[in-house]
Amino acid sequence: MTNVGFIGLGIMGHPMVLNLLKGGHRLALYSRSGVAQGLSEAGGVACDSGADVAKCSQIIIVMVPDTPDVEQVLFAPGGVAEGLSAGKTVIDMSSISPLATKQFAAKIEQLGCQYLDAPVSGGEIGARSGALTIMVGGREDAFIAARPILELMGKTITLVGENGAGQTAKVANQIIVALNIEAVSEALILASKLGADPVRVREAIAGGFAGSRVLDVHALRMIERTFNPGFRIRLHKKDLDIALRAASDVGMSLPATAMTQQLFNACVAHGGENWDHSALVKALELMADHCIG
Amino acid sequence: MTNVGFIGLGIMGHPMVLNLLKGGHRLALYSRSGVAQGLSEAGGVACDSGADVAKCSQIIIVMVPDTPDVEQVLFAPGGVAEGLSAGKTVIDMSSISPLATKQFAAKIEQLGCQYLDAPVSGGEIGARSGALTIMVGGREDAFIAARPILELMGKTITLVGENGAGQTAKVANQIIVALNIEAVSEALILASKLGADPVRVREAIAGGFAGSRVLDVHALRMIERTFNPGFRIRLHKKDLDIALRAASDVGMSLPATAMTQQLFNACVAHGGENWDHSALVKALELMADHCIG
Repeated sequence: MTNVGFIGLGIMGHPMVLNLLKGGHRLALYSRSGVAQGLSEAGGVACDSGADVAKCSQIIIVMVPDTPDVEQVLFAPGGVAEGLSAGKTVIDMSSISPLATKQFAAKIEQLGCQYLDAPVSGGEIGARSGALTIMVGGREDAFIAARPILELMGKTITLVGENGAGQTAKVANQIIVALNIEAVSEALILASKLGADPVRVREAIAGGFAGSRVLDVHALRMIERTFNPGFRIRLHKKDLDIALRAASDVGMSLPATAMTQQLFNACVAHGGENWDHSALVKALELMADHCIG
Repeated sequence: MTNVGFIGLGIMGHPMVLNLLKGGHRLALYSRSGVAQGLSEAGGVACDSGADVAKCSQIIIVMVPDTPDVEQVLFAPGGVAEGLSAGKTVIDMSSISPLATKQFAAKIEQLGCQYLDAPVSGGEIGARSGALTIMVGGREDAFIAARPILELMGKTITLVGENGAGQTAKVANQIIVALNIEAVSEALILASKLGADPVRVREAIAGGFAGSRVLDVHALRMIERTFNPGFRIRLHKKDLDIALRAASDVGMSLPATAMTQQLFNACVAHGGENWDHSALVKALELMADHCIG
């Protein structure tokens, strides 16, 4: 049994904590909006601050929305850093900037502690079933030590490289998923506008080089018009913001990522910030004045 | 045994003819650049024109590069239409315009014949092994009658819809493949530029929603710098030209297809018209001044 701290108890954090409790660990919890009764009843102990969580935990997990949130949780007054002592490990499972991650990791290591960036994919469903994909950056010894804890939350767990590499893999993942959704959208709208049945077009090409998880899953959502999340457009847009910021910071060009982010913006303009990301197709349908459904 | 005509004996047509001969059919052949000795020795009969091919064949297959080539093979003086008589079937296996296809089909049907558009994917390797994916548009009775012939050349054979629907599925396929290559390129260059190992990033994300045939196959070519075709950039660029022309003709917008076609153009500007299409990554590497390899 390990003393695990967990900060950030939202749609993802809540079920992840439940899986850690089921695994027999002692959980110290903190969230800016309080600790849900269900988590206390399941055995979690509510703390007054991130510093308090860090004081009574060997491993401190952070699962909050964005880069500034992680910075605040770790380094603001009353934050995790204040409660750390040498030998503890901070695991940031949020999806945030790879470059900021390297800075956060360096600051935590200066306190004699270890830092792992360990963002996830697989969404709420993966969080509930303990089947998340976890992409890890950090030192191998810290990874090996933390692995039994991570295995209670995820199924495919990969040490990608040094600190920042986990976040980098997540950003790469989100670029590919968004752009694959965009690709399938353009293809199916054109097919539909040319008079072909998108269902049969999809079937005809799914087994070849056009095949992808997005063509399997998201194309069906487009055809069946089932746009309840799933994964929300505002979150995917945030992930592309991280990609574009990182590209700008290192001086490189991501033209299709930039364009796809603008299509997410177009969805937001039409009230779609909480649509599933497959509803990106709607932005292109608006331009085409044609709906594939 | 069926009398089959075959027009267009290039990289694709040549091995497709060999598979039809192996299937026991009588082959009448025509190509503007003559009939290779190997095809005559295997039993194919060289004809002097498309009209001559059509006169002695029940099914006439066309496999040439682009829309104007098909138009000329079918309707120019001495072309297939001159040699047709009622009850024969023309199968165009080239990858050409879906809209022009509908016109060609209408003209052939006016002669009392059937028309199938049946473009393929799977490339030279698929043509040799008889394992092409074949996407068919046309009437179901013509499809059923032609199916035994198509099965000698392809493995996954789908009737997508009416005439033009086969070409439409092919265009959709080529859009998705090109844009998925673009997506993987952006993701891996960013990852590499941020200091992560693209090999491990690819492994970490391949099992999730970023998974695709392109991430399986083309990403490896990018990492290993093996850009001998495969599928040539100039051919994929031609397919995107068809997509963009069709989109323009029906009045819709394919922003990522247009941008990706411009990246293929950038490769051509650097001498890459015969590189494998995965070398699209080079256009983005030039912009980033950074190579993932």
